Amino acid sequence: MTDDELRWREIARAPAHDYRIFQSQRIRATHPHTGAEREFVGLHAPDWVNVIARTPAGDVVLIRQYRHGTAAVHVEIPGGMVDPGEAPLVAAQRELAEETGYHAARWLLLGVVAPNPAIMDNRLHMYLADDAAPGSAPDFDEGEVVTTFTAPLAEAYAMIRRGDIDHALVVAAFAHLAIAGPAGP
Amino acid sequence: MTDDELRWREIARAPAHDYRIFQSQRIRATHPHTGAEREFVGLHAPDWVNVIARTPAGDVVLIRQYRHGTAAVHVEIPGGMVDPGEAPLVAAQRELAEETGYHAARWLLLGVVAPNPAIMDNRLHMYLADDAAPGSAPDFDEGEVVTTFTAPLAEAYAMIRRGDIDHALVVAAFAHLAIAGPAGP
Repeated sequence: MTDDELRWREIARAPAHDYRIFQSQRIRATHPHTGAEREFVGLHAPDWVNVIARTPAGDVVLIRQYRHGTAAVHVEIPGGMVDPGEAPLVAAQRELAEETGYHAARWLLLGVVAPNPAIMDNRLHMYLADDAAPGSAPDFDEGEVVTTFTAPLAEAYAMIRRGDIDHALVVAAFAHLAIAGPAGP
Repeated sequence: MTDDELRWREIARAPAHDYRIFQSQRIRATHPHTGAEREFVGLHAPDWVNVIARTPAGDVVLIRQYRHGTAAVHVEIPGGMVDPGEAPLVAAQRELAEETGYHAARWLLLGVVAPNPAIMDNRLHMYLADDAAPGSAPDFDEGEVVTTFTAPLAEAYAMIRRGDIDHALVVAAFAHLAIAGPAGP
């Protein structure tokens, strides 16, 4: 089937509720074959960024923070929301510095994914930062409680396989690095 | 910091709005250090599953479907929501058959991730299915419009790196396969 035969035709997308970090929407669309009309929920959210930052020794910068959705502490990589008008790369550099105090000399876009395209309209921009080192004190957002540590890349991969790193968007970033292989992205 | 120093203390989690495939919640919690109370949004959703199914030739079963969140067609792997009372493995087998008509002889859990732990409370169970072959006609959910094709695993990896596969939860499944390496998971 072509994309045209797969695409629903969107008739309307209207705001429903505002949750500050995203807004829900009611989407009305018609079936590509039958024309039958159905309603779907959408979530409008800003783009996000995350960063695999590596020290000169090749260790990755990891963080631990509590997440309200799962009500659990997760091991992650630094990241956050892109501010209005901010370039994703700048957001990534800002989040790395704010959450961990690290700065990096070399930056590369690993890739862009849709965190949850069934319901969310945003994208996650995933970066690789090299020659990362502490350069300032962390500057947490109100309410942010984050602790930083480093680990060899092989250990980060092992943590993913063991389930000790289980945040899907963090795993997606490491996917790009792992697939790129020893030669790098 | 220990987990205890990172964890917010949740005071209340109350239903807000029902969107059928998930419900929003208002969460009230206190800061682990200051005790300051803040409100957060949560989304309560069922668990999800997805499947990397490989044919005897080693090709992976891919699908294309339109996603309302992004209003775009995405290349993905089969998957869906776990029904109430259903085991995740059974859900994965059911979704593979319903979306593609494929059945597989050998099943392995690749891993479990939290799709978006900041806001969602659910988990994604990712499977690897081997010796997959067509065995029945697809049985689409109401409104589902899906087309199936196969590609060598190396091509699926290349599609991820090119951004032709950009669904984060699909990328997360391939992460586990890629990290496990040539010896497999």
